[in-house]
Amino acid sequence: MSGLTIWTLDWVPQGPRGFVRDLRLRWACEEAGLSYQVRTVPFDGRETNHLERQPFGQVPYLSDGDLDMFESGAGLLHLARISETLMPSDRVGEAQTQQWTIAALNSIEMVTVPWWFLKMSGEEDNQLSEWAGNRLTQLDNVLADREWLVADRFTVADLLMADVLRVPAVRAFGNRPASEAYVARTTDRPAFKKAHADQIAHFAAADEKRSENKPT
Amino acid sequence: MSGLTIWTLDWVPQGPRGFVRDLRLRWACEEAGLSYQVRTVPFDGRETNHLERQPFGQVPYLSDGDLDMFESGAGLLHLARISETLMPSDRVGEAQTQQWTIAALNSIEMVTVPWWFLKMSGEEDNQLSEWAGNRLTQLDNVLADREWLVADRFTVADLLMADVLRVPAVRAFGNRPASEAYVARTTDRPAFKKAHADQIAHFAAADEKRSENKPT
Repeated sequence: MSGLTIWTLDWVPQGPRGFVRDLRLRWACEEAGLSYQVRTVPFDGRETNHLERQPFGQVPYLSDGDLDMFESGAGLLHLARISETLMPSDRVGEAQTQQWTIAALNSIEMVTVPWWFLKMSGEEDNQLSEWAGNRLTQLDNVLADREWLVADRFTVADLLMADVLRVPAVRAFGNRPASEAYVARTTDRPAFKKAHADQIAHFAAADEKRSENKPT
Repeated sequence: MSGLTIWTLDWVPQGPRGFVRDLRLRWACEEAGLSYQVRTVPFDGRETNHLERQPFGQVPYLSDGDLDMFESGAGLLHLARISETLMPSDRVGEAQTQQWTIAALNSIEMVTVPWWFLKMSGEEDNQLSEWAGNRLTQLDNVLADREWLVADRFTVADLLMADVLRVPAVRAFGNRPASEAYVARTTDRPAFKKAHADQIAHFAAADEKRSENKPT
């Protein structure tokens, strides 16, 4: 089978809607004008029902013809290799896009996601708060000096970094005006709005099916 | 200036020796037979003394001619593009190497590093323990079925995953025989041993200079 397929869950509760990471891949495809289809695995049993495709039981994963891959960050770099809309093709631009893509995953999200997890588990002011605050401030200092992370243009690194920063708990973490403006201009892009609306509509449509199948 | 330069700290205390992440880049260069030099920034003042090169005040960063880049994971992918020793050059092999490289950073280390941080902060049995245990078990299930993560051969994804798993606290986390065998066979490689010995020697040599300059 040829063409791009983004795999996600068939349904999720209200809370994560608009934040499930298939949005990252939808958004990248919309930016680049790449056509794609969305297919699903069941929410019920998600911990084990697709381990052969995603060994940690998560979504999304991406199919591109004979290639299957998981990790949204890796999917973004794969799509970026297809379209220069998402990443410069010169050696320096490509390396620095990879650098900032991985910084979003391993310097920011590695701290903010567990920090948020502890907060959701009832530890409002937890031991990761100082570390998270420091990293977000260091990033804010970078964003105060530039509009985009790499090569004075939007890249897939911005898509990912903005997606990491737009989580409400992270946005509420202190006064970081450069980061706030960055999230605002990035999520104002038509491709983000389309991807976001499509994800919301996808799960809303599943509500109807779910209520047909599972009367309360 | 041409050629590869790996930047690290001029000195660190005993604890992190053998684990500072310049080892990842040294190891990759040794595997690929790439020549490189090592240069340093001062340990004292490291939080702010090289922010223009690494905005989070960390090491390593890598120079390759006119290209400067931080994030050890991005440096590994950059080196892997130079030498097929580190990554297959076909489309599927390359995408899956990226996938597992990012899995090491964002599915494993994103949980194990904050878990370890909490443990070091005195929370031995902390709220991230269950999550970390689940991820390590899911990974162990993968490693039970294969010798290497991608394409039946050693790649930079194995280098990184083994470096994430070889941390003593992670190795001590439950009985995970496939992961333990994987770490053993990966760190038995001559390139790892050379990189590890070189890092130990680098910091040991700095002890002497430091004691000359700073008599206790």
